[in-house]
Amino acid sequence: MTIILKNISPWGRAVTDLAVSDGRIVSEAPAGAQVIDGGGAIALPGLVDAHGHIDKTLLGMGWRPFTAAAGVQSMIANERRLLSEIADFSPARQSARVVDRMVARGTTHCRTHVDIGPDIGLAHFHGVAETRDAVRDRMDMQIVAFPQTGVMTRPGTLELLDRACAEGADAIGGLDPIGIDQDPKGQLDGLFAIADRHGVEVDIHLHDRGEVGAVTLDMIHERTKALGLKGRVAVSHAFCLGSVPDDRLAGLIGKLLDQDIAIMTHGPSGDTPFPPVRRLHDAGVRLFTGSDGIRDSWGPLNSGDMLQRAFIVAYRNGFRRDEDIALTLDMATTGGAQVMGAAGYGLDPDCTADLVLVDAETPAEAVVEHPPRRLVMKRGRVVAENGRLTIEPAG
Amino acid sequence: MTIILKNISPWGRAVTDLAVSDGRIVSEAPAGAQVIDGGGAIALPGLVDAHGHIDKTLLGMGWRPFTAAAGVQSMIANERRLLSEIADFSPARQSARVVDRMVARGTTHCRTHVDIGPDIGLAHFHGVAETRDAVRDRMDMQIVAFPQTGVMTRPGTLELLDRACAEGADAIGGLDPIGIDQDPKGQLDGLFAIADRHGVEVDIHLHDRGEVGAVTLDMIHERTKALGLKGRVAVSHAFCLGSVPDDRLAGLIGKLLDQDIAIMTHGPSGDTPFPPVRRLHDAGVRLFTGSDGIRDSWGPLNSGDMLQRAFIVAYRNGFRRDEDIALTLDMATTGGAQVMGAAGYGLDPDCTADLVLVDAETPAEAVVEHPPRRLVMKRGRVVAENGRLTIEPAG
Ligand SMILES: [Zn+2]
Ligand SMILES: [Zn+2]
Repeated sequence: MTIILKNISPWGRAVTDLAVSDGRIVSEAPAGAQVIDGGGAIALPGLVDAHGHIDKTLLGMGWRPFTAAAGVQSMIANERRLLSEIADFSPARQSARVVDRMVARGTTHCRTHVDIGPDIGLAHFHGVAETRDAVRDRMDMQIVAFPQTGVMTRPGTLELLDRACAEGADAIGGLDPIGIDQDPKGQLDGLFAIADRHGVEVDIHLHDRGEVGAVTLDMIHERTKALGLKGRVAVSHAFCLGSVPDDRLAGLIGKLLDQDIAIMTHGPSGDTPFPPVRRLHDAGVRLFTGSDGIRDSWGPLNSGDMLQRAFIVAYRNGFRRDEDIALTLDMATTGGAQVMGAAGYGLDPDCTADLVLVDAETPAEAVVEHPPRRLVMKRGRVVAENGRLTIEPAG
Repeated sequence: MTIILKNISPWGRAVTDLAVSDGRIVSEAPAGAQVIDGGGAIALPGLVDAHGHIDKTLLGMGWRPFTAAAGVQSMIANERRLLSEIADFSPARQSARVVDRMVARGTTHCRTHVDIGPDIGLAHFHGVAETRDAVRDRMDMQIVAFPQTGVMTRPGTLELLDRACAEGADAIGGLDPIGIDQDPKGQLDGLFAIADRHGVEVDIHLHDRGEVGAVTLDMIHERTKALGLKGRVAVSHAFCLGSVPDDRLAGLIGKLLDQDIAIMTHGPSGDTPFPPVRRLHDAGVRLFTGSDGIRDSWGPLNSGDMLQRAFIVAYRNGFRRDEDIALTLDMATTGGAQVMGAAGYGLDPDCTADLVLVDAETPAEAVVEHPPRRLVMKRGRVVAENGRLTIEPAG
C-alpha cells in the first residue's frame, strides 16, 4: 500500500508531503499512491507509552470507584482482592481494550509491566503475551515481568520472573527493594542475575523517597556496571530524584550518566515528588514517560493519551516555554522509543511509517491542546481517524 | 422553543427525560416538543468558569511562545510590552473568541477579571463589556475590574477602578497588596471603599505565600466584617492556604467561615502551593475554580475547558475517590454559580435551562475523561454539539 500524506508539518517544521510505501517512509512516492490531505496538521512519529500496567485495567467493565486505603501495601492488597473477586477477569481481553484506546489516541509503541507473583503465577503474563501477538499489526509491545506483590517477601517470585523471561518477557521489573522487601541486596541481586541470564532489559519501580530511594539507585548503578548492562536499565518513577538534597541529586545524576540509566516519570498526582525533568535532560539523562495504570484499582486519573500525558508532565513541572514543553513531547516519542529499542523510529526516509497527525500549529500546541488525533498510521496503514479506530478493535 | 431531552442522567443519577420550555426546565413538557436523544449521557448544569482573564488572550492570533522571565513583576512588564506591540489588539474581539471556545466546551457562566490601569485606562473594560452584551444569548458574564499593574504603586488606578464600577463592573479586584504594592492597608482600604460605594462584590488575587498572604487574609477578613460584606468577598489563588503551618491554617479557615469568604483555586502548575480543597470543603468554606488566563502572555497551559479544569484540580490534589473528584466538579458548577449569584442555576424544575451533556457513566468519569461535550444548551437553546458551536461564533 502506497500513501502520500499531503500538506503535513513534520514536528511542526515546514509543511510538506510525506510518502509511505510498504510500511515505510520513502523519499519519493511511487506512482498510483493514495492521497490523504493532512490539512496542515503536525506529523509526529507514533506516540510511545513506555510505562503501563495494561494487564489489570478495569476499562470496559463499568465505572469502578476507587476503594483502597492509603499506602502502597494496602493498595496492593486491595487490588489482589478486587481482581480475585471478578470471576472472569481476563488479562488478555483487558489489555486488548487498553490497546484499542491507545491506538485511537496515536500510540504505536508501548511497554507494559505485567503482574507476576505466587498468587497469580504467569496468568497475566500469558494473557498479555497473547495480546502482544494479537495486536502486532497495530502496536509494538514490550512486556516487563513485574513483581507487584514483592520479590523476597514472596518466595517463588524470582523463579516466576525467571520463567517469564525464558518465555519471552522483554524486560524484568522490580519494586521498591527497600520499601516493599526490606532486602535491597536480595531483590536487586536476584533481578540482575535473571537479566544477565536471559539478556533482557531491567526496569525497576522505585517509589521510595529521599535517601531510601537514593541508596537503592546507588545499588542499581553498582549492579548495572558490574554486569555490563550499561544503557539497558531504567528506573521508573524515581521519586527520590525529586526529594534529595541538591548535592546528593548531582551525585545520582553522575551515576545515571555513567551507566546511561533511563528515568521514567509520568508527572504524578498529588504532592508526590518527582524527577526534575529539565535538569535531568540538560545533564544528559535519558527520560521517558507512560500512562502508568489506566482506570485500574489504583485510581481513575490516567487516560492512555500520551499527548495528555506530555501535558501533565509539563503542568507538573511548571513548563511554559516551547522548548520545555517540547521536552515532554520528546519523552512521549523518541525518549520512549529509545528505551524500547524501537528500530526505524522517526519520520525520516526508511523509517517505519508509524505516525500520528495532530491539528496544531506547533508541537507545544499539540501537547497543551491534545485534540483528538486527526489520523494514526501504523506500518503504513491508517488505523485511526479523528480519535476513533478505523480497524477492527482488538478488545 | 420546547425540547425534551430523552434518556439523560442528571448528575449521574437515574436515567430520565428532561423537558425545557421557554428557556426553563419544566416538570412536564408541553405537546409538540422537539425530541433530542441524550444517549444516556450525564446532564450537568452549565459549567462555570469563575476566574478568567479573557480580555488579553492571544487565542486566534497564531501560536505565541512564552517569552517572559520568571517572577510576577517581569511577567506583568512582559505582558504590557507585548500587548502594546500588537497594533490592532482588541479586547472585545479576543474576549469573544474565548467565549466561543468556552461555550463549545459547555461553559454557560463566566467571571472574568479585566485589566484596568493608568496605561490602558478602561479600554479593556469597555471591550469586554461590549462582549458581555454581545454574548448574552450564550453566556452569563461578570466582569471584575482588575488592577493588574498594582494599585498604590500606580497612582490613578483607584479612580479607574471606581469608574469601572460606576460603569457596570460586577466586582472589584485586587492584587497582592503586600507583594505588589507593599501597602496592604492602602490597597485594601481603597478597594473596599469602592466596593462599599457601588455595592459590588470583591475578588482579590492573592499569590503572596505563607505568612505574607496570611496577614493579607486577616486584613481582608477584617474589612469584610467592618463593611458588612459577608458572603460577597472571594480570594483567588490564595497560595498561602497551602503554605502556612497547620494551626495558622485552622485560624484562617475560621475567619473565612466567619465572613463566608469564598476561595478560588485552579490547581496551579509547577510546585506552587495551593489551598487544600478537601479540608476547606469539609470545614464549610465555599470553593470555586476557573481557567485563569487562556493562551495569553502568562503561558499556554490553560484551555478553557472546565471539565479538564476539574480534572486538573483533582490531579493536583491527588484525588482518586468519586466523592473527592465530585468536589472538583462542584467547584466547576454550583460553587462558581454561587459566587456569581447565578439565579435559577441547576437542573430542577424552574431552573434556567443551562446545561451540558457529557458521555460518561458517572460524574467522576465526566471529570477524568472530559470528552468533547455531546450537547450544550443555554436558556433552552442548543448552542454546541460534539464539541463544536451550532450557533454563529461571537469572535
Ligand atoms: Zn507503574
Ligand atoms: Zn487570575
